[in-house]
Order: sequence, then C-alpha cells, then structure tokens
Amino acid sequence: MATLGDIGVAAAINILSAFAFFLAFAILRIQPINDRVYFPKWYLRGLRSSPLSGGAFVNMFVNVDFRSYIKFLNWMPAALEMPEPELIHHAGLDSAVYLRIYLLGIKIFVPIAFLAFAVVMPVNWTSGSLHGSKLTYSNIDMLSISNIPLKSDRFWTHLVMAYAFTFWTCYILKREYQIVASMRLHFVASEHRRPDQFTVLVRNVPPDPDEPISELVEHFFLVNHPDHYLTHQVVYNAKKLSSLVSQKKSKQNWLDYYNLKYSRNQTKRPSKKTGFLGLRGSKVDAIDFYTSEVARLSEEIALEKDKITKDSNYIMPAAFVSFRTRWGAAVCAQTQQCRNPTVWLTEWAPEPRDVYWDNMAVPYVSLSIRRLIIAVAFFFLTFFFMIPIAFVQSLANIEGIEKAVPFLKSIIEVKVIKSFIQGFLPGIALKIFLIFLPSILMLMSKFEGFISLSTLERRSATRYYIFQFINVFLGSIITGTAFQQLDEFIHQSANDIPKTIGVSIPMKATFFITYIMVDGWAGCAAEILRLKPLILYHLKNLFLVKTEKDRIEAMDPGTLGFNSGEPQIQLYFLLGLVYSVVTPILLPFIVVFFGLAYVVYRHQIINVYNQEYESAAAFWPDVHGRIVVALVVSQLLLMGLLSTKEAAHSTPFLIALPVLTIWFHRFCKGRHEPAFKKYPLQEAMMKDTLEKAREPNLNLKEFLQSAYIHPVFKGGDDSDDDEMMEEWVQVPELVKTKRQSRRNTPLASKQSCSSSSSGD
Amino acid sequence: MATLGDIGVAAAINILSAFAFFLAFAILRIQPINDRVYFPKWYLRGLRSSPLSGGAFVNMFVNVDFRSYIKFLNWMPAALEMPEPELIHHAGLDSAVYLRIYLLGIKIFVPIAFLAFAVVMPVNWTSGSLHGSKLTYSNIDMLSISNIPLKSDRFWTHLVMAYAFTFWTCYILKREYQIVASMRLHFVASEHRRPDQFTVLVRNVPPDPDEPISELVEHFFLVNHPDHYLTHQVVYNAKKLSSLVSQKKSKQNWLDYYNLKYSRNQTKRPSKKTGFLGLRGSKVDAIDFYTSEVARLSEEIALEKDKITKDSNYIMPAAFVSFRTRWGAAVCAQTQQCRNPTVWLTEWAPEPRDVYWDNMAVPYVSLSIRRLIIAVAFFFLTFFFMIPIAFVQSLANIEGIEKAVPFLKSIIEVKVIKSFIQGFLPGIALKIFLIFLPSILMLMSKFEGFISLSTLERRSATRYYIFQFINVFLGSIITGTAFQQLDEFIHQSANDIPKTIGVSIPMKATFFITYIMVDGWAGCAAEILRLKPLILYHLKNLFLVKTEKDRIEAMDPGTLGFNSGEPQIQLYFLLGLVYSVVTPILLPFIVVFFGLAYVVYRHQIINVYNQEYESAAAFWPDVHGRIVVALVVSQLLLMGLLSTKEAAHSTPFLIALPVLTIWFHRFCKGRHEPAFKKYPLQEAMMKDTLEKAREPNLNLKEFLQSAYIHPVFKGGDDSDDDEMMEEWVQVPELVKTKRQSRRNTPLASKQSCSSSSSGD
Repeated sequence: MATLGDIGVAAAINILSAFAFFLAFAILRIQPINDRVYFPKWYLRGLRSSPLSGGAFVNMFVNVDFRSYIKFLNWMPAALEMPEPELIHHAGLDSAVYLRIYLLGIKIFVPIAFLAFAVVMPVNWTSGSLHGSKLTYSNIDMLSISNIPLKSDRFWTHLVMAYAFTFWTCYILKREYQIVASMRLHFVASEHRRPDQFTVLVRNVPPDPDEPISELVEHFFLVNHPDHYLTHQVVYNAKKLSSLVSQKKSKQNWLDYYNLKYSRNQTKRPSKKTGFLGLRGSKVDAIDFYTSEVARLSEEIALEKDKITKDSNYIMPAAFVSFRTRWGAAVCAQTQQCRNPTVWLTEWAPEPRDVYWDNMAVPYVSLSIRRLIIAVAFFFLTFFFMIPIAFVQSLANIEGIEKAVPFLKSIIEVKVIKSFIQGFLPGIALKIFLIFLPSILMLMSKFEGFISLSTLERRSATRYYIFQFINVFLGSIITGTAFQQLDEFIHQSANDIPKTIGVSIPMKATFFITYIMVDGWAGCAAEILRLKPLILYHLKNLFLVKTEKDRIEAMDPGTLGFNSGEPQIQLYFLLGLVYSVVTPILLPFIVVFFGLAYVVYRHQIINVYNQEYESAAAFWPDVHGRIVVALVVSQLLLMGLLSTKEAAHSTPFLIALPVLTIWFHRFCKGRHEPAFKKYPLQEAMMKDTLEKAREPNLNLKEFLQSAYIHPVFKGGDDSDDDEMMEEWVQVPELVKTKRQSRRNTPLASKQSCSSSSSGD
Repeated sequence: MATLGDIGVAAAINILSAFAFFLAFAILRIQPINDRVYFPKWYLRGLRSSPLSGGAFVNMFVNVDFRSYIKFLNWMPAALEMPEPELIHHAGLDSAVYLRIYLLGIKIFVPIAFLAFAVVMPVNWTSGSLHGSKLTYSNIDMLSISNIPLKSDRFWTHLVMAYAFTFWTCYILKREYQIVASMRLHFVASEHRRPDQFTVLVRNVPPDPDEPISELVEHFFLVNHPDHYLTHQVVYNAKKLSSLVSQKKSKQNWLDYYNLKYSRNQTKRPSKKTGFLGLRGSKVDAIDFYTSEVARLSEEIALEKDKITKDSNYIMPAAFVSFRTRWGAAVCAQTQQCRNPTVWLTEWAPEPRDVYWDNMAVPYVSLSIRRLIIAVAFFFLTFFFMIPIAFVQSLANIEGIEKAVPFLKSIIEVKVIKSFIQGFLPGIALKIFLIFLPSILMLMSKFEGFISLSTLERRSATRYYIFQFINVFLGSIITGTAFQQLDEFIHQSANDIPKTIGVSIPMKATFFITYIMVDGWAGCAAEILRLKPLILYHLKNLFLVKTEKDRIEAMDPGTLGFNSGEPQIQLYFLLGLVYSVVTPILLPFIVVFFGLAYVVYRHQIINVYNQEYESAAAFWPDVHGRIVVALVVSQLLLMGLLSTKEAAHSTPFLIALPVLTIWFHRFCKGRHEPAFKKYPLQEAMMKDTLEKAREPNLNLKEFLQSAYIHPVFKGGDDSDDDEMMEEWVQVPELVKTKRQSRRNTPLASKQSCSSSSSGD
C-alpha cells in the first residue's frame, strides 16, 4: 500500500504533467494559426475573424514575448470573468448549468473537507490501533477509519459526521435544485418568441383510409382544439435523402482533395482504384471519377426530393402542430387526445435543432419491444463486456500477428519492440472498447426511439453512469469482472454485500487518489489542449481547405458531450461522498479536481464548444438524482463497514439515513421536477397576453411555417438546388442565441486575444 | 402431513358447514321480517316496499312450504340472471368490475387446472422417487413436484408448463384490461351530465393578503382559463360542525330509546348516570337529560353554522372549480397551473359522494412528511405487530384476570372454564388485531391526506395485500414472525431466498388447501348469511325504530369493502399461480372458491350492498398489477425450488420469464393505464358538442352551483334548521345511478321476492 510519500510523488508527477499540458496549450493558443482550434465558438458566433489576414508573417508561428510565458495561466481569470447571465446568452443555459455541477461539487466538498479534517482525521489519527500492528500499514491508513480499533466508541464520531455530511449535501442539493429550476423558468419566460413554444409534436397518427395524414391531422386538431389550432407541418421520411446528401458531401471532399493535389502538382493527374477501400479494382482518373460521382448523386438527390414532395408514402405518421397561443400548445402537450393512449401522442416539440429526425415514426408496440431488447442488451454489455474483449485479446498476441503478417516477423522479434507490443496489445482492445462505449450507448438510445438529441444524451448518460458505477467503482474495489461480482452478490446476503464492499473501501483510497489525479487533473489539462482537433484541423487545412467556408467546416469545435462528461463528474461525487467519512484525505484531491475542471470547462464553453441544442437544463433532475444515489450508496457502505468493525452501538442509528435521504429525494422530485417536465399555464397565458399587447398584428403562421423542416431541406447542400429549396425554406428563422449586451463579450474576446496579440 | 383422505374429510366438513350456512340463509331470507336485512339494496333504490304491511301475520315467521327447502339454492341462478349492463345500472360499474375479478380467476385457473391435471400430475405421479423413501410422505406429495428425483429430465415438463401458464395468464390479463378499460370509457362516455365531469378540485391555494380565497380563485381562473371558467365553490372547514351533528344524532338516538322504553312501561321514568360510560356520577332523569342535551347541541350547531358562513377563517385553501365545458375541465385537471408546482394543484374532482372532506387543506410539505411517517409506521406494523400482541397476551392470563377481578376467582377456577379461557385468551388479542387491521390501514391512509374515499380504499388495499403477503403467505410457508423472516432474509443471499421459500412450498400445500376451504368456501357462505347485520337490525328494530325513516336507518346494507375484500381475492391468485406447477391438486379448490364467491358476491351486490361511491373501476390497474406480482413471485419461487432440485439444465431457462412478465406489465401499463387516469380531450369535445346541440339553453351554472357542498349542510339533521339549509342547498342534484330500462329489475326483484312470497 502506498504511503503518503508515494502519493506525494504521484501528485508531483501529475501536477507536472498538468502544467506541461497547460504550457503547451499556452504556447499553441497564442499562435494565430491555431486560432480556429482554440476559439471556434467566437467564429461560429461571427464575433471574431481570421487573424491570418493581417499582421507580420513571422509572428504567426513563433511567439518571442517573454511575458506571455509568465502569464501562461492568464486564461484562467479570463474564463472566470464572464458573468453568468452573459454566459447564458453566450453559450446557452445548458452550458451554464452544466458548469454549476462543478460548482456544486465545490460547494458540497469544501465544507465537508474542512469538517472532516478538523474532526474525523484527528479522531482517526489518535486512535492508533494500527501503530503496534504487525501488518505494515501505510500512513494513509493511519488517517482513515481503519486505524480505529474494533468496538471503539469513537465510531460515534463517524456516525455524527455521516449525519452532518448528509444534511449538508441535501441542503446544498435542495438549494441548487431550486436555483436551477428558477433559472430554467426565468430562461423560458424571458426568451424571445421561439417556434417550439407554440408547437407540439404529434406521433403515432393512426392511418385513415379516406384521408392523407396531413388532412387527418388538420381535421383532428380543428375539431379538438378549435380555438387554438393554427397550422401544422408533416414529417417527411428523408433518411435516404440525407444519406445521399452526406455521400455527395464525402465525394465532394475527395474531389476537392484531388483537385488541390493536381493544382499543386500539374505533372501527373491523380488516379485511384475503384474497389475496396481504394486498394483493389481497376485504376481510374480520380478527378473524372469523383466529378461523375458527384453529378450522379446530385441527380439522385433531385429525384429523391421530387419523390418526397409528391409521393404520400414518404409522409410519416407524425406532425408538428402549431397553435395560436402558447397556452394552446401547453394544453395540447400536457393532455391526452384520444381514447386509445397509443395514438395521437402529443408532447412538447423539441427545439428544431434538437430534433432527432430518424425516430419520428416508431409505432408504440415496436417502441416497447425495443426498450426490452435494449434493457437486456445493456445488461449483457455491462456484465459481460469482458468476454469478447478477452477473446480479442487472446487473438491479438505476438504469434497471431506473426502468422497474419509474416514479413513483419523480423521487426517484431526485436526485443524492445516485442516487449512493447506484449505490454501494449492486451490493453488496446479494452481501451478501444472504452473509447467507443459512449457511442455504443448513444446507438442504443437511438434504437430505443427517442426523438430529441437531448433525450438521447440524457439516456446515454444514465447508462454510462451505471456502467461506470459497476465496472469502475465496484470493479476497482472488488477484484474480478463485473459478472464475477454479480455472481458473488447473488450468492451473498443483502447484509453482506455492503460489508464486503465496505471493508475494501479504506484499502482502495490510495488507488482512487491516483485515479483522481490521472483521470481528473491531468485529464482536465489534456482536455484544454485539444490535441485531436488540433491535428485534424491542420490536416484538413492542408488537404481540403480552399475557401473560407471550407475552413469553417474544417474547424471542429466539438460539444459539451453531456452523455460522457456528466457520468464522469458523478464518479467524483460518488468517491467524495463514500470517502468523506472513511478516508477524508481523499477530499482535497476531489476539491482540486472540481476547481480545476470548473475553470477549464468554463474556458472551453466560452471559447470552444459549439452548442448543439438548448434543452434549458432539462438534465438537472438526472444530475440531482445521481448525487442522491451516491449519497445512499455511501451510507449503505458505511453501515457495512461499521458493522464489520463491530460498532454495534452506533450502526443501527445509520439506518435512518438512507430512509431520510430517499424521502428527501422524493420531496425534491415532487417540489421541483415539474418545472423540468411541464409548462405552467399561468406562464403561458402571461406571455401570450404580453405579446398580444405588444404585437397585435403579428403573423404567427408565417413565423412558424417552416420552423420544423428536416435539415436536409434547409442547408447541407447549398451548392446547388437552391432554387428548389426556396419553396421549402421561406423564413429560416432558426433559434438565435439571444444577445442583449454586446459590449461585454467582444471585450472578453479581445482580452483572450490580447495575450496572443501581445506577441504581435 | 395430511393424506388425500384427510383432505377429503376436511373438504366434507367445510362443504357441510357451507351448506349449513346456505340453509340458514335460505330459511332466514324468506322470512318477511328479515327482508330489509337481505334485500336492502332494493329498498335503497325505492324499488321494494316493506312486506310487513300486508299478508297473514303468521307467515311472517314460519315458512311451511316444503318446496322452498328443496329450492334453497335457487338464489344462485337468480343472482346470475341479471345481465352485466343491467348490473352496471343497478349497482354501478365498480361493483360490476369487482365481480369480474372473480371471473378473471375462473378464466385463468380453469384451463390451467385442466392442463396441469393432464400433464403435470401424471408426470409427478409416475416419477415415484418417494415410493421407496423411508420418510412417510403423504399422497399429496406423490402428486406434487416433490415426487420427482433430483436432476431428473422431467423438470423440463414443469419449465414448459411454467411458460404455458405465464403466457395464458398474461393473455387473459391483457384481454381483461382491454375490456375493463373500454367498459370504463364507455361508462364515462354514456353517462348523463354529472357535476364531476365539469369540475376540478384545486388545492393548496396560496394565501393572498389582499384577497379572500374565494375571490382569489375566481380571479386566477378567470385570467388563466378565460374562455372556460364558469363558477367555483369554496370548501368550508366543517369538522367541528360534523362532529356536533353526529353527537346530536347519537343523543337523539338515546332520547328515542328512553322515550320508547317509557312509552312501553309508563310506571317508571328511566334514569341514567351522567358519569363515565353511564356507570358513575349522579343519577338524572334520562329523558329530561337527553332532551336538554339535544337542545343544547342544536343551538351549538346553529351557532357553528352561522360562524362558518361569516368567518373567513373557516374557508379552507381549496375549491371546486367548475368549467363551461368538459373540455375545459379536462384541460385544467391535466395541466400544471403555476410556476410553483406545490400550489394551485388541480386534479379531477371526485364524485360528490366520494369526497373525503377532512383532507382538503393539507399543505404540500406536511403531505410529504405524512407519507414518510406512514411508510415507516406501516413497516413497523407489518414486521413488528406481534410485539404488542405478545405483550397483551402475556398480560391476559388467568392470574392477571384473577388479580384484576378477584370476585370472579371462584368461577374461573372451574376446570372447564379455566381451560376454555386458557385456550381462548392468547388467540383473542391477535384475532381482534386482525379484525381491526383494515380499519387501522384506512386510518393510516386518511392520515396520508388522500381526498377521495376511492383512493383511500385503494391505498389501504395495497397495504393490506402487502401485509397478507408477508404475514399470511410467507408467514405460513416459513415459520416464525415476520420480523424473524426479515432478519433471516437480510442474512441470506438473493439466490437463497427463493430457494428457502421454494423448498417449503410443496410441503405447505395441504395447509393452504385447508385454508382455502375454511376461509374461502365457508367464509363465502358465511358472508351471505350476514349474521352481524341481522342481529344488529333486529336489536335496533326492538329499541330504536319508531318511524319508517328509522327503519331505513336501522338497516345496514354495508358496502363491497374493496380495501379488505380485494387483497383477500389476490391471495387466492397468488396461491393458485404459485402452486399451479408445483402441486396442481390445489387448483380445483381455487376454482371452486372463485366460482362460489362469484355467485355469492353477485347476489350480495344485487340485493344487499349499498354503493358508497362510483370510481368507474379506477381500481383495475391495482388488481392487474397485483396479479402480475403474484405471477413474478410464482416464477421466482419455482426457480428457487428447481435449483434445489439440481435441475441445472432447465432452471436457467426460467430467468427469461420474470423479465418478460415485467415487460408485459410495463407494456400494459402504457397501453391501458391512461384510460384510468386521464380523460381524453376528444371524448370531452364530443360530449360537449352533442350536449350543445341537444340542449342549447342549458343553465349549467345552476346545475353545478350546489353539487359540492359538505354533506353536513345537506342532509344529516333534517329534523330542524331546514329553513337555514335552504339557502345552501338550492338544487340538491346528487348523482343518481342512471336507470334507463326499468322493466328488468323489478322483475328480478320480484323473482327474488317470489321465493319468499311463495311461502305466504
């Protein structure tokens, strides 16, 4: 087991590597050529233009100003400077509330850490049951609950502390829930007119032999919402079309690449093979080939579009129905329309950006079967994912490679390379799996039939959290694969499971401290460096970029990634709460993580990430719920641990804690969750009345007419067919991020520029 | 363990006692003097008048007609004769659907019994692992799964049968859910105008310093539902008033009793003691005393009524808000009104009869704390109820009684009496507790703050089911108190719990067969006899009844008692499903119970029970859910049982069953439950449109004005104060059970009379 000294060394290494990342970031970001990698958000919002256009050429690559190397952390105060309302206007409420998760971590764990250091640590340290022990215990264990002898009365301290920490956490959670709920309501209320405020998504429109879907929808709502119905838009099945469009785009990219290649080297026309992956088949002139391919696809696209508009089979049994008033839409979204609860399903339309178009037409029975399939699949994924990986690992050994590619044998047999491969190969299958896991989970959610990106991400996040809880948290505490654990738990009593886990917890403290430093500290620092987008951008810049538009496409701002990011934060909440009473020395590491991550992600959200959609913090109930789960888990594990310590006096008093915590959760759910699911009629009526007074002659129908059109009909291929699109997109009034005060941000933007321009 | 012969004897005894009950019933019911005990429903509906008024005097007591003794079961076909739509009109949808639970039992278990007798029984019987066994096994065990040797391949039969039974049960459940849902929708749609169709209950109206509650409600709904709001009624706090009224009623009863006594024996004026229970205190003239008491209470009631109308503190923060259209009410009931989800809570108003007035003003936080308290209390009630009972038992022994009442010592010491008391006393505390259990659970539900009788009963039923499941089902299988079981389960692995229970199941078959016969068969037969109401009616008739009105009050039709009746039926579903594969010999007993109970309760519903409220079968989701629970329990226990039989090949194939069953439940829930919770707008609009066309000049406001008035202002004390009540009750349009075709029922009524009049 590691001593305090070992941890000190590990901390030093991780702090150094974090500093190295920050240093690299500081150097790279002030090079104007990387400007689009590190500040894409400002480009997307049109508040920043390319620095390449002006200035001395030499300054583009080398920064010789000594000051900027001293001030290499000055992005941190800059990131913290933007006030929250400004941030909401800049990057949306989702991002602002996402940052509050880190703040929540700080708010919860800083007082807990102080209290734990003031009370729990001295009690643990002075007990000294381990001082005379024959087993070699580490210093860390001296500070943990392990140091307290069996049946000691000192466990009352831990009991009282567990209560104190629970109450503090619940208090902060409740306050935060309240704040976020009111932020959401304020955000929704203060928003400008948005199409989704007036629109309801109707799914599972039952087929009618006499009427086409469009008329059916119109008649149904004219009859059942006579005073409120305004207009509707049917949903077209554009799967094939969008696949054609993306095919065309890829071919166009290749065409551009070969054109660029040819223009640089006029002596030889580039050629390619038509077969598998460009490796086999007959050789053809690449430019001619791709030109003809693009032309063919353009034709097909035009044909398909024509078909979609004319053929009624392309209309899906779903529609976006818009109402005259927000009140009408709120009513329709919250009520049941028809006797049969599986048809005419209404719900709030997601924001146009947020719609996931492919799942519009899944019928009820199929939906329900899909859920079952995914639930079973997820169970197997969580508990049996090691089996295929072990299989791949068994294949991917040195002998296997030598058999497959005999000509590499001589290289592989070199000792250094051999040992490297042997050490590296077994891990790679697992690593690849873990990298792709969020995408696999997203695919699962998509299969389940959710209709907005935000729901998809929330669902995936829940699954990812469960996976991490079982395979990272439990998997680290108890050795063995998840399936072995499951098997063990099934054969253990409900009483013994918390004991088994609880006993191992103090022993794993050093492991988790290292984990926090590597994954949390260094990981955060690596995030800000954006190594992958940096490389990809420069590669694209080299091979594809011709115009300014290409350059904009080449920059990949990325998104916040709620589906993988939030579960990772939750792991830290879990670790912090579990160890708060047991081994408080872990807490400062958690606090540092939350502080660092808050600064880093605030910087990234301001400068980098693109906002894919705006769900108005709809994810908060999930965040809250998972922290409560962590709290209950920590209480159960503490009970298990204490019962192995034979602290028979104090353990029974812990039983009330999970009961109270679960009750607290239900109370909060009832009190605050409706703000995230429903839209109060009072609010709707207020906004309607105001709007009517302000703009009595508003033509709402025009405003709503083309809000919900499949994106493939909107932009995507603006190179041609524009004239046809005109009839589709009359007023492309997409949701704009509101921006009331423009005077602050350009300043902030200039500030972050100022460090880079200081070298000019 | 009992042999088949033992069971035959037990069956004979129970069948005989059931016949004895039926015989007694047949004799008693044809005595005209008991007419109001056995046919109160017809009196309540005004379709039958007292048979005492006409006919020969002697025939009132003795029935000498030989034929009626042969035809003593002829009420059975009569009970089955009334068609279901007729039954719905006669006794309400709740009763009709309640009977369908018994029918459901028959539908599920008759085919299962046939299949089990055809397949499982021969397989068990011919295995014969027990034939040569040293242990003495009973014949029953030869027919059960116990007879099959370990590791036998014959367990595949049971596996396949488990699948077959599950699919059959699910199929029937789904079909039944569909039928009941459509019955409910049809019932709601075909109903006449009812106040609750237009009315929404608003609770937690936030206090406003500037406006009284009545105005506040009016303004809020005028603003937020401008086109639909019609009128509202505030809720008065009439707790004190109703307690005064009931006090007065009781004193009036005593006054009547003493008056009657005096009128029969004019020589001596009756007197009573004013102290504790009429045992102590000074002696006064009873008639004078009660006359003055009644006068005092009348005055107090008048004062209290005056106060309620004038003092605004008596107005509770709740109101019944009525709308112009059903559409408007449906919208308001299903939507959230205000930002703060804990105020302005709207829900469908219960039927006026169904309202539980005392819980109208419970604030949200208090509600949530009450739920917690009751959840904890129920846990302790379920697992620790034996502790106080054991305590009472330890007190109530012979010595204790002798000490308390020494003068009885000589009587108690008589040997026969002593042994009787010793045998009787320990059981009595438990028996009393079990008799009062449904009332205790009802009190708990009332404390939880539900606002309609139907919800209260549904909630109590759920709790009663859990109690029975743990204390009757598990308690019979595993010896020891519920708490000992809980303790054992906590210390057992999740794998072992089904094994422990599963192993004991075949051994308890004979016990449960006896239980079914005693509780099910004889219990049903006893129910029809109505011994308690019979005695009480005749006592009241003797001491209190002066007028026809008194006689109506004296008859106690009782109600269906969903809160205690349904959980008991569910126990039979559980037993049937658990034993269907294990010991199929139990199935015929279950089938007989369902058949018998169906006939008995159909008779009682037609002739006896009064309908307290009409919830339109809102309880069906609970019934369905509990049968699914029974199904899953039976599957888990079978898994446990088979794994102890080391049937390693077949057991894993059972895992899919609970997964599929739970999925089936979720599917049904999504598909059918909304019909029981929501009111589709399409339906509302259809009815509104129809009504507008039919009755364009309807004065809805007048119709609704006094629908939701506390019953204490309506009837109750119609002896005086009537003139004051007039201003309250303008149009006492209470919900009438609709009756379209009157030609059938009087016939049925006459039929059931005919047997009694045949003796005249």
